[in-house]
Amino acid sequence: MPHVDARSNKTSIATAQDRFLRGFIFIALIAGDLAGLAADDTSAPQLRWQYVRPFVGTKGQGNTYPGPSAPFGMIQISPDTDKTNWDTDSGYKYTDPTILGFSLTHLTGTGCPDLGDFLFMPQVGTPSFVCGNKSAPETGYQSAFSHTDEEAAAGYYRVKLQKPGVVAELTAGERAGMLRFTFPAGDQSSIMIDLAHVIGPWRVAQSKVRILDNSTVTGFHLINGWAKERYLYFAARFSRPFDDTEIISSGKPVIYNTYRFRSHRDVSGTNLQFFAKFKTAQNEPIEVKVAVSAVDAAHALQNLEAEIPDWNFDAVKNGTREKWERELGKFDIDGTEDEKATFYTSVYHAFLAPNLYEDVSGEYRGFDQNIHRAEGFTAYTVFSLWDTFRATHPLFALVQTPRDADMINTMLAHYDQSADHMLPIWELQGNETWCMIGYHAVPVIVDAYFKGVKGFDARRAYEAIKTSALNPDYDSVAAYEKLGWVPCDKEDESLSKTLEYAYDDWCVAQMAKALGEQSDYDRFSKRAGNFRNVFDPSMGWMRPKDSQGRWREPFNAHTYGSETNSDLTEATSSQYSWFAPQDIPGLVSLMGGRDKFLERLDSLFTDTAATKELSPDDQRGCIGEYWHGNEPSHHVIYLYSCVGQPWKAAQRLHQLITTQYGDQPDSLCGNDDCGQMSAWYLFACMGFYPVCPGSSDYVIGAPQLKKVVMRLSNGKAFTVTAENLTNDNIYVQSVRLNGKDWASPYLPYNQLKDGGTLAFVMGPKPSRWAAE
Amino acid sequence: MPHVDARSNKTSIATAQDRFLRGFIFIALIAGDLAGLAADDTSAPQLRWQYVRPFVGTKGQGNTYPGPSAPFGMIQISPDTDKTNWDTDSGYKYTDPTILGFSLTHLTGTGCPDLGDFLFMPQVGTPSFVCGNKSAPETGYQSAFSHTDEEAAAGYYRVKLQKPGVVAELTAGERAGMLRFTFPAGDQSSIMIDLAHVIGPWRVAQSKVRILDNSTVTGFHLINGWAKERYLYFAARFSRPFDDTEIISSGKPVIYNTYRFRSHRDVSGTNLQFFAKFKTAQNEPIEVKVAVSAVDAAHALQNLEAEIPDWNFDAVKNGTREKWERELGKFDIDGTEDEKATFYTSVYHAFLAPNLYEDVSGEYRGFDQNIHRAEGFTAYTVFSLWDTFRATHPLFALVQTPRDADMINTMLAHYDQSADHMLPIWELQGNETWCMIGYHAVPVIVDAYFKGVKGFDARRAYEAIKTSALNPDYDSVAAYEKLGWVPCDKEDESLSKTLEYAYDDWCVAQMAKALGEQSDYDRFSKRAGNFRNVFDPSMGWMRPKDSQGRWREPFNAHTYGSETNSDLTEATSSQYSWFAPQDIPGLVSLMGGRDKFLERLDSLFTDTAATKELSPDDQRGCIGEYWHGNEPSHHVIYLYSCVGQPWKAAQRLHQLITTQYGDQPDSLCGNDDCGQMSAWYLFACMGFYPVCPGSSDYVIGAPQLKKVVMRLSNGKAFTVTAENLTNDNIYVQSVRLNGKDWASPYLPYNQLKDGGTLAFVMGPKPSRWAAE
Repeated sequence: MPHVDARSNKTSIATAQDRFLRGFIFIALIAGDLAGLAADDTSAPQLRWQYVRPFVGTKGQGNTYPGPSAPFGMIQISPDTDKTNWDTDSGYKYTDPTILGFSLTHLTGTGCPDLGDFLFMPQVGTPSFVCGNKSAPETGYQSAFSHTDEEAAAGYYRVKLQKPGVVAELTAGERAGMLRFTFPAGDQSSIMIDLAHVIGPWRVAQSKVRILDNSTVTGFHLINGWAKERYLYFAARFSRPFDDTEIISSGKPVIYNTYRFRSHRDVSGTNLQFFAKFKTAQNEPIEVKVAVSAVDAAHALQNLEAEIPDWNFDAVKNGTREKWERELGKFDIDGTEDEKATFYTSVYHAFLAPNLYEDVSGEYRGFDQNIHRAEGFTAYTVFSLWDTFRATHPLFALVQTPRDADMINTMLAHYDQSADHMLPIWELQGNETWCMIGYHAVPVIVDAYFKGVKGFDARRAYEAIKTSALNPDYDSVAAYEKLGWVPCDKEDESLSKTLEYAYDDWCVAQMAKALGEQSDYDRFSKRAGNFRNVFDPSMGWMRPKDSQGRWREPFNAHTYGSETNSDLTEATSSQYSWFAPQDIPGLVSLMGGRDKFLERLDSLFTDTAATKELSPDDQRGCIGEYWHGNEPSHHVIYLYSCVGQPWKAAQRLHQLITTQYGDQPDSLCGNDDCGQMSAWYLFACMGFYPVCPGSSDYVIGAPQLKKVVMRLSNGKAFTVTAENLTNDNIYVQSVRLNGKDWASPYLPYNQLKDGGTLAFVMGPKPSRWAAE
Repeated sequence: MPHVDARSNKTSIATAQDRFLRGFIFIALIAGDLAGLAADDTSAPQLRWQYVRPFVGTKGQGNTYPGPSAPFGMIQISPDTDKTNWDTDSGYKYTDPTILGFSLTHLTGTGCPDLGDFLFMPQVGTPSFVCGNKSAPETGYQSAFSHTDEEAAAGYYRVKLQKPGVVAELTAGERAGMLRFTFPAGDQSSIMIDLAHVIGPWRVAQSKVRILDNSTVTGFHLINGWAKERYLYFAARFSRPFDDTEIISSGKPVIYNTYRFRSHRDVSGTNLQFFAKFKTAQNEPIEVKVAVSAVDAAHALQNLEAEIPDWNFDAVKNGTREKWERELGKFDIDGTEDEKATFYTSVYHAFLAPNLYEDVSGEYRGFDQNIHRAEGFTAYTVFSLWDTFRATHPLFALVQTPRDADMINTMLAHYDQSADHMLPIWELQGNETWCMIGYHAVPVIVDAYFKGVKGFDARRAYEAIKTSALNPDYDSVAAYEKLGWVPCDKEDESLSKTLEYAYDDWCVAQMAKALGEQSDYDRFSKRAGNFRNVFDPSMGWMRPKDSQGRWREPFNAHTYGSETNSDLTEATSSQYSWFAPQDIPGLVSLMGGRDKFLERLDSLFTDTAATKELSPDDQRGCIGEYWHGNEPSHHVIYLYSCVGQPWKAAQRLHQLITTQYGDQPDSLCGNDDCGQMSAWYLFACMGFYPVCPGSSDYVIGAPQLKKVVMRLSNGKAFTVTAENLTNDNIYVQSVRLNGKDWASPYLPYNQLKDGGTLAFVMGPKPSRWAAE
């Protein structure tokens, strides 16, 4: 598919080394022993992982990182090109000229920076202890690099660092990974670990580094960051003994002190760098095994030793590729090479987070900062729930049900550990960031419950859901319960909160009903209708209302709020007014009926007032005021199908797919948000979308690939075909579901869960299918 | 015994409540159920714990604390009267007018401040968030108090706080304790926990407080203190539900924030106070169970629940008194009430530290900051080894052998966990403070080995000993090995280090020999003679020597070094020159023979030049330049016995016992140093002393009590009797050991280990016993 930005030079991520691997049969990959096999250098990749383009999203606002990670892995080793720019939240911007080093943890696609723990950087010559300035890299340890000397693939990253002349290669397993630095000859070669490096303007409250033996070091820092109190430990083992070591504290070498002995092998501080020093021969590779743990340094070392017992970089890389192949194999598609790259990269991005958060011992640092053992589940972290309740978790409920259950069990443990008795809002490494709004662990759990995700206790989950939804301390929930809306004179983002609470409450009600909790069902069903209370018929848009029931004056439905005082969450009312997924007919009626609803919906894609307020990067994600780059718009296009104009959905979907997605660094028009942007794409390709997670139905849009086979976690395959699909034939002409004609714009989960076929016939013009 | 300071008003530590307990038979105490038994109010206490005077050492430089602790307990709940004065190292000075509150951990007798974790303070009326000024207590939460309203006993402390009108009572078990606050009637009564309080000028790197339920709170802080990276957690459960709670961060209430929800139940920061708020009735007691853990808050809560399941303050107090009774019962004495108070208080102080450092689960935070499980031993902390190798551990090797083995196993674990591969120097809660000099874990272990302390692996211990003694990174050990002395131009405190290394090396040699390591024996025996290399015969004193073999010029044997550049460790050469306990005959010969040795030794007690440099408090501990208030002098008096003038030892011992010890707040003339000053006293009373720990002999001085029965850990009793002992009859006339005449000034361990009797006959004049 052509990318919205015309570019002549595509980033070559397929190097000779990767081409060499192409065509190898999967079994050889699994065996991990490729030596001696003849290359079958066919022109097209045979393996799905070969279509993964980790650079997608690294240019613009995608905020992805290019370095290797296992699926849902705990460690993400990736180059950092910045640590101070607020928008470089994953550490890497494709447009930056320098690399600061390679750190061990990264967030994928968030809109707030954090992590970037423990920066590894090779240096040659007199080492620098400071990062320096990217416009003058000689001022520090950072180095210029060129994308022509850079390569990123599933499980692998490589770059040549121009200043030291060192080639850096990275690979990552689940909790441990490897870095390989190939040095020039030098008497003063070194590998630095900067323990003070962190992505974002955060404070190192405490840090420690310990030299365990002649080739092993462990370290720790406690960061007051987006996550307020975040503990992370690492272990690093080098492939050859140190010739020398040095620890720098606040710019000064920590040396033996004859007056009062101070260890130079075990140093505490808040600004520490460790240097492993070597005399290197020309082209000498020095490898470093690394692992992280949130428990303690011993657990990091245990993770390292358990996961990477040998010195075999390729075995780690191939092991992770095997894992990716298995995960990517949940989908098969018919498509062009570019489409495959875009699709499998989207699967890749959708399967990066949440992240594994327990050690090989099964222990993890809980939300209460105590060390827990995950009994009967695997613990995860990084719950970007305001984003991922929409499409990511609904996708997991189909193709990642064991992990989805693990994530839900993690959330229930979080609830048990929470002093506020809340399910997570935006959890990050054992901390509640309280970022964004709503209580969207609820739709995640309720959707999973109704989609038959096994492995969590529904009664226990319901207790947590209900308590969270009734927490009187949380964001004016008490006033909302009393008034029927969140009052704009008492609470910021009140309009968004009212709308999202109402949807979450509908989810609570559905689970209450299923569990026979009739009074809860009644109570939450009533709250689910609260979206009606903030619709101003005179304006035709949702509108903030104060505690006296008065509308906000003045109010413009096409204006973004200020950062410090906004009625809406990163949005305008023209974007948010569509958020009543639990009752689309009710919303239609509220808006004055189908015609007025459609008129307004059409205008969303043509009005431009609000769009001008956005940054150029963000404007890329807009069609009128429809802003694909942020989540409140994500379900909106499918509303066309709900009201009998599926061809308009088809048109807009095709427009988005062909202009807002692709396989290039700038192919994401907004934060990938832990996979939500990518999961949206996968549903779009399959022609349906979870407009209302927790409900029994998906809404049909229009398929964007000729064929997608989705392998459900229960082993069944659900196949979507799109006969005659071309760039011109984008409109659904007819649909057959499991062999029968299907006239409804809704795809019931029951028709999908045991596998089957959704067969579209496409044509160049809107048809009468599902039309009203 | 009369105290050196004449005082008419002795502190009454026996209140009505305690008097009530007097005369109860021990079995009733053990049963813990005293209700219904009639009081037998005899005039003299029947129980040993009743002789414990916790105020001893709280005035002057003793640096003890008056609050309750179980023997070797992990928690020490005690009032703090200061946190900034460097000399108030245990938090309490008897002369201070105010109490800041009651914190949970305290060092006993150290010369450096730390601990004082988590200050509990009741307030009435509008609460203050700051400590305030002791000269104007209305500026903060501290309160004036009077010693007439104060009481301290084994396992119990009580004070009336004048400002709030609250009576505070404290008791402590091993890891958990209780505070009871009896309030006046008030609408605004509160109990504050100040998490930023710490004794000393230290930095709170991180802190956290969490309200778990309506009566339970946990918290944490990480302190960069004397211990550089010290983690401590607490749990506190209140006897009635909070009426309200408030958390203060840096002086401001942490409140619900409508823009971005911030929890007011789970707060991180560096300056936190928690307030439990109550409406109280007149004389309403509110109790708080507290516990600490170095592992995490969950372990603190587990310790609390396991150790104090019920709400029974007296049960905790009586349980601890029962433990003390058992420990104090290792000694029986004949003596006056004052002598009993002094003696049992000394036993009490000798048995306060090291401190238990593992949770009820068996887990502890290791020296590597990892969480370990103590397998096959009990973990301890607070190893003040430069002090305690002298008399405290040698005492443990007789009457606390299981604990001594546990402490040694803890030190071996420390060695395993040490990045420097060192046995501890001065360990504090999982940190090496590197305080003081030498490698005195060596004599502790070697003495225990030769005294038959079972339960540690001698080969493993020897490996740790040898590695520690050969560490080329440590305080010029490499130069010392090469030159035969620590060069004064390369290393501070070089003279003290040379002397102490040599003694430690002699200990290594003895163990090497026992284990058949002949070449090690030779190597370390050679090093053991290194004290000879720093004796300047022209001066007649030990003298610093530089790396070229030149004596320090100028050098005055009667001058203390400066704090930043000293050849000696808190001492003069006139004090340190006596430190070659491993070879007294060699030292005598070095000094020019017995006569010159004695002349010089006599002069130590009459020279006064150096003494004038000391503070008035420290001068109290001096007899001439003999400075009992600091450890380098501690073995010196017994040298008189070694050279045939035991009557001079007798004279000085009697002088010290009658002027430097007692049962009053100022009865310690120097830092108790984790029990060393007190253990010295116990040996002195028994008439012998471990001049050279690790050797087979003690040196006989002169008994100071008519009878002491010491119950060895093997169940045998060793009895010392002193027939005719009075304040006039202080000289040994004859000795019978196990029924036979004993003419030697040495008491072999072999004659003691199976129990027996050391029978002195005392007289008013020096005799020919052991005279030369």
